Amino acid sequence: MSAGTGLTRPRVVVLGGGFAGVYTALALEKALGGRDDFEVILVNRENYFVFQPLLPEVISGSIGITDMVVPLRRLLRRAEVHVRDVEAVDLEARVVSTSPGFRPQPHRVGYDHLVLGLGNVTDFRGLPGLPEHAMPFKNLGDALRLRNHVIRALEEASIEKHDRELRRQLLTFVVAGGGFSGVEVAAELNDFVRAVATSYRGINPEEVRVVLVHSQERILPEMAEPLALFAQRLLQKRGVELRLCQRLQSATGTEAILAGGDRITTRTLVSTVPASPHPLLEGLPLSKGPGGRLVTTPELRVEGTANVWAVGDCALVPTPDGNPAPPTAQHATRQAAVCAHNIVAAIRGGDCRIFDHRGLGTMGSLGHRSAVAEIFGLRVSGFIAWWLWRTVYLMKMPGWGRRLKVASSWTLDLLLPPDLVELRLRGSQGLSREHYEPGQEVFREGDLGDCLYIVLSGEAEVLKGAPGREQVLTQLGAGEVFGEMALLEHTTRNATVRCRTAMDVLRLPKHEFATLAAHLPDLRASFEKVMNGRRGAGSK
Amino acid sequence: MSAGTGLTRPRVVVLGGGFAGVYTALALEKALGGRDDFEVILVNRENYFVFQPLLPEVISGSIGITDMVVPLRRLLRRAEVHVRDVEAVDLEARVVSTSPGFRPQPHRVGYDHLVLGLGNVTDFRGLPGLPEHAMPFKNLGDALRLRNHVIRALEEASIEKHDRELRRQLLTFVVAGGGFSGVEVAAELNDFVRAVATSYRGINPEEVRVVLVHSQERILPEMAEPLALFAQRLLQKRGVELRLCQRLQSATGTEAILAGGDRITTRTLVSTVPASPHPLLEGLPLSKGPGGRLVTTPELRVEGTANVWAVGDCALVPTPDGNPAPPTAQHATRQAAVCAHNIVAAIRGGDCRIFDHRGLGTMGSLGHRSAVAEIFGLRVSGFIAWWLWRTVYLMKMPGWGRRLKVASSWTLDLLLPPDLVELRLRGSQGLSREHYEPGQEVFREGDLGDCLYIVLSGEAEVLKGAPGREQVLTQLGAGEVFGEMALLEHTTRNATVRCRTAMDVLRLPKHEFATLAAHLPDLRASFEKVMNGRRGAGSK
Repeated sequence: MSAGTGLTRPRVVVLGGGFAGVYTALALEKALGGRDDFEVILVNRENYFVFQPLLPEVISGSIGITDMVVPLRRLLRRAEVHVRDVEAVDLEARVVSTSPGFRPQPHRVGYDHLVLGLGNVTDFRGLPGLPEHAMPFKNLGDALRLRNHVIRALEEASIEKHDRELRRQLLTFVVAGGGFSGVEVAAELNDFVRAVATSYRGINPEEVRVVLVHSQERILPEMAEPLALFAQRLLQKRGVELRLCQRLQSATGTEAILAGGDRITTRTLVSTVPASPHPLLEGLPLSKGPGGRLVTTPELRVEGTANVWAVGDCALVPTPDGNPAPPTAQHATRQAAVCAHNIVAAIRGGDCRIFDHRGLGTMGSLGHRSAVAEIFGLRVSGFIAWWLWRTVYLMKMPGWGRRLKVASSWTLDLLLPPDLVELRLRGSQGLSREHYEPGQEVFREGDLGDCLYIVLSGEAEVLKGAPGREQVLTQLGAGEVFGEMALLEHTTRNATVRCRTAMDVLRLPKHEFATLAAHLPDLRASFEKVMNGRRGAGSK
Repeated sequence: MSAGTGLTRPRVVVLGGGFAGVYTALALEKALGGRDDFEVILVNRENYFVFQPLLPEVISGSIGITDMVVPLRRLLRRAEVHVRDVEAVDLEARVVSTSPGFRPQPHRVGYDHLVLGLGNVTDFRGLPGLPEHAMPFKNLGDALRLRNHVIRALEEASIEKHDRELRRQLLTFVVAGGGFSGVEVAAELNDFVRAVATSYRGINPEEVRVVLVHSQERILPEMAEPLALFAQRLLQKRGVELRLCQRLQSATGTEAILAGGDRITTRTLVSTVPASPHPLLEGLPLSKGPGGRLVTTPELRVEGTANVWAVGDCALVPTPDGNPAPPTAQHATRQAAVCAHNIVAAIRGGDCRIFDHRGLGTMGSLGHRSAVAEIFGLRVSGFIAWWLWRTVYLMKMPGWGRRLKVASSWTLDLLLPPDLVELRLRGSQGLSREHYEPGQEVFREGDLGDCLYIVLSGEAEVLKGAPGREQVLTQLGAGEVFGEMALLEHTTRNATVRCRTAMDVLRLPKHEFATLAAHLPDLRASFEKVMNGRRGAGSK
């Protein structure tokens, strides 16, 4: 039965530790019973399962940072868990390769049945500046990064007394995408920022702006119109600006730029759209439908395969009503049960089941004791919906331990003001990319020289002199390096660099540059050559 | 009165947000009363105050990750808080410069009175390999990094089935330093690892080793001998190996090397020693005593200055019995009160007070419901000491909010198994340094090529062939680059690199190397030159 892998028992490998993957592994464990006639391996990048519906609460800290995640090993008692990135799948050889661990050695896992539960990713490709400057909101790391970034912006705004433009940037928070995820993030972010702003003596709460950008006429397209309109009114009442029928087109480090040309000055841009399936799937020769999702049979086999299964957000699963199943936890967990049943049937022999779950309803939190819900055709909004939302999700959390923790955090949250600890795990900053729009300044004369730039595309001018009476010293184009002079000579910038066109740059921090330049003589020599060439012109 | 700064009111600037700095600022706020006749600014790198005694509990997760820290803005209602690194102090001009924020501009804060409460840092200089491979345990970031690293080691050990040496490295945890801090870390680490190891099917709990290295004959030199011996017996009973009269001398990525030549194979090395004052103080022309601490008068003025004060671990404060005050929270908070009083007296006129606190006692936790304490000359150990320890510290925590959170976490901890979520905030890895000892391999033939190395000092051989029948292809010395071939050609390593002497290298990860090489043609050309030169010999 496990001819392909030379294993003694057939092996099922599940890729992905979200609702789809974890619930498939759980159902497989249950089916194992006392027979132990196959083995289960789950591969996931993190060692925990994220209870996604509660993720936005991390922003405000109304639940503990790790309360809404469950360690995979506490959930899965019989499956083997590999905490690794999946790097490749060889469908011919039936082998999954994962990223190396402490030693740089390839790690291969053979399988008889493969379950793809890899979910989707926020995909900013093709949107200039978004990969560099927009923050996705998908996993615990994203939520923590956003929370930290927001607190940092408030800290900086509170001591920035002179530069009014910088204050505006720091105190404006933009969320793009008005589906469930974007709305929940905007609501939590708005509640949090407005609540903690009062703790900063240097910030006037009226300076705070939270903007939600959505491409359609109303938010929450997943819900009935009256509920969406309720949500809109509520968000507006609490101070969220809605920008409907507008689409985020590009971004820089200081602006969100909409398709119509409108610009919102900000240092905090979160985007929950657009989504595309896990990049690993792109290269696999499997049948794909709209949006790159894997086309499955009603039994959840990927079309045209015998031993590859797909569940959850990366799968396009047909339902009895003809539409594909929506990408929700509710559907993923039901698919998981069917998929596990059918894999067991394929191993032991037996009848297959088909996926025929009809949705029970949808719910979305609007922050501070309000929500919208549609359950069994009933529409509820406000406090009752919020109470329902909390109760349903608390009961759905796997394991009593977490339920207890979440319940206790929620109770304390009623009594205590929101937490505003900025939890930084410092590390080297490393290389990063930045996107600039025409007219933007990369740095100004007199700034500290904290990094070096390499132009990837676009053009810029090097200027000197007081604003309004600037003199153009030289032009910069693709492949050129700038900013090295202040670094090599430890001075402040002696010129301003302003973009003529949209420009993408690679940014190398001072510390890394200094270390590299000290130990790679060729590199240092080539920078000195560039610098000396420019010195005649007085530019940097 | 504030002649130096041109301010309307005198300004007190406090550097450091530990016990010393925060309690000074609190006492100053209180003294302000309704008079508001001076202003207070506190500068700290983090936006929170860490309640240090509870920090080791972060390792096991028995309290929530942020429960033992308090946001500075919740504590300080009238002082201005600047969340920045202090970069320089100009005592002549009476100006503090801090690191830049979102914009690369220098930030200067003038002062009339300066309070130095910068604490101390773990200082690995002069110990080969420690800066690269040992983890300090000072702040919340350190505690989280250690926790994550330990969980990662367990995850990897649980799926490593072939390489027994790697398993041993992953499952051995070494703590250097047997003072309070080291003992508490070893105790918590031991409890945590042994408790969660049972959740990993692939790990036999007997494989786990926790080793405490201490340079003296007994641990806890701060306490009376009977208590220290009690602690030693308890730790040993729980499985901690003690290495007394031994000193950590150097380290590599896979070993802790003791002064006698003993080597402990490990991937997790924590060192709580040696400590030295904040690096900023080194450059300041102030009177310093043993260990670089600032010598103060009994009034807490730094010797020879009129408006510079020092409190806490960075200060050498005389006490009535002739010894300097020990570096504990208990003494820091008392110094803070005296310092604040004397600054107010200097501003408003009035009598100075002197610091004459006699210690009330000492306490140290030994993990899992045991501790040792010496209070008013009374010695207590075991459960009662632990109960005392928890009660005293709970009451000492500033603010009811945190007390409630900690109490609730402790209660849940009695009911629930320890959490094992690995909380990674991914970022670019960037450049790093590594230290190798003679005979160690940097990589082996057949490994994945995941980074490039630059030799900073030392020598290595490039070898090819099966173990035992290896052929030396070439030698590597300072300034040479290696490992580029597998990166430029995307293959596995085609040779082994083994050190002939102790060697320090700079490690550049694949991703950063690829980006730099793609955009800096000079750099790529110079690597290709090196590579082609070697290709004749078949080496890399």
